[in-house]
Parts: sequence; C-alpha cells; structure tokens
Amino acid sequence: MKTPICEQYGIDFPLFAFSHCRDVVAAVTNAGGFGVLGGAAYTPELLDQQLSWIDDQVKGKPYGIDIIVPAKFEGKGENLSGRQLADRIPDDYKTFIAELLAQHDIEPDETPRMGSAMLAGSAGEQLLEVAVAHPIKLMANALGVPPDYMIKSGKDNGIPVAALVGAKEHAVKQVTHGVDLIVAQGTEAGGHCGEVSTLVLIPEVIEAIDNAVPVLAAGGIVTGRQMAGCVAMGAAGAWTGSVWLTTDEAETAPHTVKKMLAATSRDTIRSTGRTGKPARQLVSDWTDAWRPNESGHATLPLPLQSMLAEPTLRRIDNLANSGHPGAQALATYFVGQGVGLMNKVKPARDVVFEFVQDYIAAAERLGASVRD
Amino acid sequence: MKTPICEQYGIDFPLFAFSHCRDVVAAVTNAGGFGVLGGAAYTPELLDQQLSWIDDQVKGKPYGIDIIVPAKFEGKGENLSGRQLADRIPDDYKTFIAELLAQHDIEPDETPRMGSAMLAGSAGEQLLEVAVAHPIKLMANALGVPPDYMIKSGKDNGIPVAALVGAKEHAVKQVTHGVDLIVAQGTEAGGHCGEVSTLVLIPEVIEAIDNAVPVLAAGGIVTGRQMAGCVAMGAAGAWTGSVWLTTDEAETAPHTVKKMLAATSRDTIRSTGRTGKPARQLVSDWTDAWRPNESGHATLPLPLQSMLAEPTLRRIDNLANSGHPGAQALATYFVGQGVGLMNKVKPARDVVFEFVQDYIAAAERLGASVRD
Repeated sequence: MKTPICEQYGIDFPLFAFSHCRDVVAAVTNAGGFGVLGGAAYTPELLDQQLSWIDDQVKGKPYGIDIIVPAKFEGKGENLSGRQLADRIPDDYKTFIAELLAQHDIEPDETPRMGSAMLAGSAGEQLLEVAVAHPIKLMANALGVPPDYMIKSGKDNGIPVAALVGAKEHAVKQVTHGVDLIVAQGTEAGGHCGEVSTLVLIPEVIEAIDNAVPVLAAGGIVTGRQMAGCVAMGAAGAWTGSVWLTTDEAETAPHTVKKMLAATSRDTIRSTGRTGKPARQLVSDWTDAWRPNESGHATLPLPLQSMLAEPTLRRIDNLANSGHPGAQALATYFVGQGVGLMNKVKPARDVVFEFVQDYIAAAERLGASVRD
Repeated sequence: MKTPICEQYGIDFPLFAFSHCRDVVAAVTNAGGFGVLGGAAYTPELLDQQLSWIDDQVKGKPYGIDIIVPAKFEGKGENLSGRQLADRIPDDYKTFIAELLAQHDIEPDETPRMGSAMLAGSAGEQLLEVAVAHPIKLMANALGVPPDYMIKSGKDNGIPVAALVGAKEHAVKQVTHGVDLIVAQGTEAGGHCGEVSTLVLIPEVIEAIDNAVPVLAAGGIVTGRQMAGCVAMGAAGAWTGSVWLTTDEAETAPHTVKKMLAATSRDTIRSTGRTGKPARQLVSDWTDAWRPNESGHATLPLPLQSMLAEPTLRRIDNLANSGHPGAQALATYFVGQGVGLMNKVKPARDVVFEFVQDYIAAAERLGASVRD
C-alpha cells in the first residue's frame, strides 16, 4: 500500500501497534507496520535501554513512543514526592482493599505498597528527552492535550506528535494545539476511553477537523476487516493495542491471557477501578468492587487510584498465575471489546500478515458490492 | 447494486429503514431501499389502514413490518387486562413522577394515565394476522427471539423473518429458532440495545453464525460511509432507525427534532427510564431521574415502566413543543449516537440518495488504498 500515511511514515501498511512490550514493537515494525512503545512506566534509564534494543532490531525502520501526561491530576503543580501523594490516599481505601483481598483468601500486605506516581512530576519530560535521542518517528500522548514541551520537542526535532481523543471536541482542540496525527478512539477500546463508539466517532472527528491532519481509527479493532471498514469511512489507518496482548511476544500475565482467550466482547467494562479515570478492562471481582451503581466503593482521582491499585493488582496477577482461585477471580487487565475476537496466541508478525490479508479481502468485498 | 440481498428482497440498495411513520417507509421503498413500519403501537384496525396506504404508495415495491414481542415481561402468561397490569405499578412511582413534574413546573395529572400494555396479551399475533394480508416482504421482531407464531407465519406465507440481536450468543439462538435475517445492533443504536459496539459485534456475529443467514449491521449508522464500512466487514447491508427521525416525513415532536439537530454523539444515554429495558435515547432531566448510580429511582420491568412513562412523556412533548422550559428539559426520545451526525432536516428520499453516493465514495476510498 502506498497511501499518503504510508509514504509519510515510511511503512507498508498503516497499522499502528501500541504495546508496553519492546518485542511487539519491533516485530510489528519489522513486518511493515508501525510499533509504538508505551513508555510511561519506565525510568529514563530503562526507557533508554528499551529503545536501544528496538533500534538494534528494526535497523532504521520506523517506530514511536507513547507516554501518558494527563492534563489534570491530583497534586498537579504542587511538586509533591510520591510519598507525599501517597499520603493523600485515605486510610479507609487501604482498609477496603484489605477486606476485598481477605474475601478472596489473600493476606493483606503488612505495609501496603502504594506504587509510584509516574509522570506526576517532570518524569514525562525526562522520558521524552531520552526518546528523542533515538530515531523515533512518532511521539504520542495517550490522555488529553500533549504538554507544551512535547509539542515543542516534536517541532524542534521534526517528529510528528499524535494524541488520542474520544470526542470530536477534543480532536478540534488537539489540532489547534498543533498535534500532527489524531487517534480517534471509540468506547470499545481497551484502557482509557470515552463514550462514543468507533463507528460514530471516526466520521464525526474527520468532519469536525475538516482533514486538517490524518485520523487513525482506534477502539475494538483486532482484524483487518474492521480496519478496512474504518478506512472506508475516511480513516488513514488503525491504531491498535488489545490485539497484541495475546501474542507470543507479549508480557501479559499468563492467567490473564487465558481469561482474554475465553472472553467474549461482553466480558469487559469501562471502570474507574484501576486508574481513577474510565478505562475498559476485563470484568472481574476487582472491577465489581469499584462499580459506582451498586455496593461498590467510589474511586480516587488520577494518579491516586493507580498508586493504590497497581501494586495490589500485580500481586494478584502473580497469585493468579500460580493457581490461586481468589486471585484468579480478581485478576483483570486493560482490554477492548475486540477481546471477543481474540481466540488464539500467535506471533505478532502473523497478526500483521493476517491483518493485511483480511484488509484486502474486505476491500474486495466492498468493491464487489458496487461493481455488481 | 445487485448483491445477493438486493436480489432476494427486490431492492436496489440494501438500506433497511425502520420507522413508525408510514411516509418514511413508503419514501425509502420508493427510493430503492427497504422500508419497515414499526407496527407495535397500532391497533389491528389502524395497522390495516397504514399498510393499505403504504400499498397504494409503493405499488408492489417491497416493504416490511416490525413488531415488539418481548420473550419476557411482567404478567406474561397471566392473561391480565391493561387495568390489572397497571395495578402493579407501585404508588410511590406515581408520586415520584408527580414530584419530578412539579420540579419542572408541570401540574400532575389528576388521575395519572397509565398507558396501555401493548403486546402483553395476544396483540402481537393479531397485528401479524393483519400484516400478512398485505404484500409484506419481511416481518421483524425487535426484542428477543420471535414468538413461535411469527416463525410459523413466516414459513407459511413465504415471508422472511428478521430479528434484532445485541450479542453473538443471541444471534446463534435466533438462527437455531429459524430466523432468516439477523440484524446485529450495536450499543450505539437508538432504542433497545446491548453493550457491544457495532464495529465489534458485526464480525463477531458473522463468525458465530458461520454465514447461515445474512447479517444486517445496525447501531449508529446514519451515513453511507458507515454502511460501506459494515459491508466491508461482511454485513449484507444496513438497518437504520435514528436517521429517519429528522426527515421531513417523520412525526417526531418538533422540539425533539431541534434537540436532535443540536445534539452531539455524547448527548445520548442507554437508560431503562422509558421502557424498563436499556434503550438509548437523548439525555434529559427524565433520563437523569432514572439513573441507577446517583439519586435516581429504580425502574420497573417491561411493560410497566413504559405504561408509566409513555403517557407522561407524550404530555411533556406537547408542552415542550409549546415552549414550556421545564418540559423542554425533560423531553427525550429514542435515538442512537449517530445523532451527532444528523444536522439537517431533509426528505427521506434525499437521505437514501445521499447514502448511496456516500457509500460509493467510501468503496472508492477503500479500493484506492489497496490499488496504490
């Protein structure tokens, strides 16, 4: 394929793959797509190592990085330490988690670990400085308008800046702020998402920004036919995340992979229980415990909820992997409704090739309907 | 277009239009699509008149009817009168509505009207008997597995039976029950809907039923490019409803039309506040009053909630049309997220022609992406 976005990004197929796993990023890029490393959870040193490894693997082929710098969060501008932020987590939340664990036959931690407050300080800027020393071809912000330093770094270094949006109003705002690529992500997406479905959001965003910049479709896309449907609607390509979680290369917890393979599209929920903002993930006893409409507990604002949740969920994953039934009932991870179509573990490279074939078949199918 | 479904249903373009308005049904059929009259709210005599009128207009061109025969509802099998069913509406619900109206400067009814329990008895069967005396080419059930008498009537009269589904498990069940056409409707749809988005549901349903019967895509589709996207994914065509509500022909309350033209895709909500089952509609003070997660009131089961709600909502519509601010804040109607793309009142015929043009342009766009 030689569409404008393929030319611009130097790729064969406009399939963008977001992953926290460097192996997935390299495999997708080497297969003709565009890998994007989720870098938010790394220290600057570790990110540098990851990117150097990718550089060795892809030998000049294009890839990008994605960090999360939310526009609003608890403690913004106060320059707090992780410790000081953790002190803002009310004691009854720690008690609630201890009780939830006890109900699932899991011992509470003696001293509950509260996690680190990633990106709440200048961490995002430091990660970006590391990234631009590598030959990255895209920098993305996964939540809200990118910070000014990202827009500036993109312009200074000639690297396009992408941003994820879940509503047309946000897309218009992002374009005004100088973003070069819009990822319009529907409510069926894994992770942070809005309320509008991909099928409605894509034409709405494209109309709203009047072709100012290309739009990638995201949310629920795990096959080439869905990607083709979005390109028919005017998208320049697809941005994907969930589909890589069940690849050979992914570092997804083994028990969670099993859950994903068994899940239907109705086994996910848009919940604030992991980060404090609505994010789609597997339904589990964990997400049930944070349901707003039943006996569930209210969640804390970003980043306090993830500081509270992440260390516990990692402990739960380890227990679930070792066969602990209570932990298996609690275990969850970010994934979109497309999980219903993810039924087999395969190499990331094969996923790309199947996307291409399925895309071409879909284009044939639509073409035949107007030719006949 | 001469796709298999066009041949089978005798149409030029596989756009199915559900409407309560006979004028829309006739206009769509006459423009080369397939009109489907929502017949559930008619008496047998009135339905007969409506269908005779359509027969005169379409002169043998194909159209169908849609009724709602839920598989489960309050009082099923008890052979209750509307009066007896109405007696099951608790008094505190009447008080709640009176208070909600009072908060919006609307006088309560002296004797609250409770509405009729449409289709709770043998009304569905009677409507169907009337319908098959007309040259209908499709009978559809909008909620759950069609009753046995519908399947039998379809076979006896050689009329295909369609059913709407919101999950792949339901599609498999419907096919087993002998349904000839599946309408797979995503969560972005107006009216009753499930939780899975159209973009995920379509490939999931098609895979699950293994091409046993054709699948129409529904949910959020108000443009030809979205329809084309769904055909690229394997759908045989589109089933639409919301887009007809803002046509010249529609009988939508004028104030509600204004609300729809101004609405974005984020101005709808999946609420049980109108029928007792989750149905997407415009957000309003009415839907806020029935939110499960805040100070809202729990809703009654089908058909009690609609018996309670419909007469009041019709009064509200009339007041809203005459400029009453409280009623305007309460007014709502079923509509999908596609409402964000519905920005102009136009003739139904023009909507069909715009769909065709937009569909062809989308097919060109996708075709170009693989040719280049």
